[in-house]
Amino acid sequence: MNYPSETIANAVEQLSRFPGVGKKTALRLVLYLLRQNPEDVKRMSEAMNRLKTDVKYCEVCGNISDQPKCRICLSPRRDASVVCVVRDFQDIMAIENTGQYSGVYHVLGGVISPLEGIGPDEIRIAELIERVDKGEISEVLLALSANMEGDTTSFYIARKLETKPVKISAIARGISVGGELEYADEITLGRSIMQRIPYRSDSEF
Amino acid sequence: MNYPSETIANAVEQLSRFPGVGKKTALRLVLYLLRQNPEDVKRMSEAMNRLKTDVKYCEVCGNISDQPKCRICLSPRRDASVVCVVRDFQDIMAIENTGQYSGVYHVLGGVISPLEGIGPDEIRIAELIERVDKGEISEVLLALSANMEGDTTSFYIARKLETKPVKISAIARGISVGGELEYADEITLGRSIMQRIPYRSDSEF
Repeated sequence: MNYPSETIANAVEQLSRFPGVGKKTALRLVLYLLRQNPEDVKRMSEAMNRLKTDVKYCEVCGNISDQPKCRICLSPRRDASVVCVVRDFQDIMAIENTGQYSGVYHVLGGVISPLEGIGPDEIRIAELIERVDKGEISEVLLALSANMEGDTTSFYIARKLETKPVKISAIARGISVGGELEYADEITLGRSIMQRIPYRSDSEF
Repeated sequence: MNYPSETIANAVEQLSRFPGVGKKTALRLVLYLLRQNPEDVKRMSEAMNRLKTDVKYCEVCGNISDQPKCRICLSPRRDASVVCVVRDFQDIMAIENTGQYSGVYHVLGGVISPLEGIGPDEIRIAELIERVDKGEISEVLLALSANMEGDTTSFYIARKLETKPVKISAIARGISVGGELEYADEITLGRSIMQRIPYRSDSEF
């Protein structure tokens, strides 16, 4: 592409670093910015910079937070004896959006992945065990993705905690609500049969 | 959405101002930024800010430029007697990418659009006539989009220039190269028949 000026070429180059944004999309974003007020562009770029300067992590659970402790850990309405183990803060957002969970969280910051060179010491497993050892936790709910890395990490954590006086649970796997049986993959369908639950005619989401 | 911190919520809000970027995509961009080095994020945000501080417009043609005159107007290899009239600098980029044009440009900065309240005085038509009046231009090539606003603007400019000693041309409309006749819309096909050209067996793109 022949950009008319270095400033444009540089902005296209920089914005195309975003995931899923190619040169053409980046140029569209640049054209949008050119049409905005300087203050609006400044507000946008400052919001981006603040992500690296202002975002802190909760000293208890590792969730993203503006204060030393996150909103969830600080809330008196949350049951601090149940800890849900997740990979990232996005997983917390997803679970919070269900409105079905009232415990607290523990963010690992990743999952065990030998292929990517991530071992148990690279993620916040020691911190989880430390929290359990304080004796205030009665249940650890594993909520990692159902793939090889997630399963490995769940297995590793369960082994580490098996001698401790804490209940270990995992989120249910099965046919999604509203899902058609014939389109489910066989592993999911198999798991949902193996892990079948007592039928209750009044059970609702 | 329940964002874990104000900083995240604000960044999502700001990035979702980009055209075609919703809250979900903005969150993905935010997550990407969180994983980058502070310097990389800074480089990105500065490139955005510079769009409003460093981008200048060529004093001759109105193209975007880092210097007072743009690269094209400064080039000794361009034929300054042929002026191609375009709407925006993106159109210049598109034409330059063809490698088929060696004249110079005139950027209108918009097209006449009564619906949007844009009249002939809002765009750079007076500047074009001034350039023609200097007597150094032999041909004005109209290269505006083939829609109502573009056609209106071309018509207006042609009327303004008809008494001046300058040739007025327009880019050809017709079936696109490689295009199937049966899928062409009837207006395009009709125009390409009306404006037929002598056949040359050696004609190439």
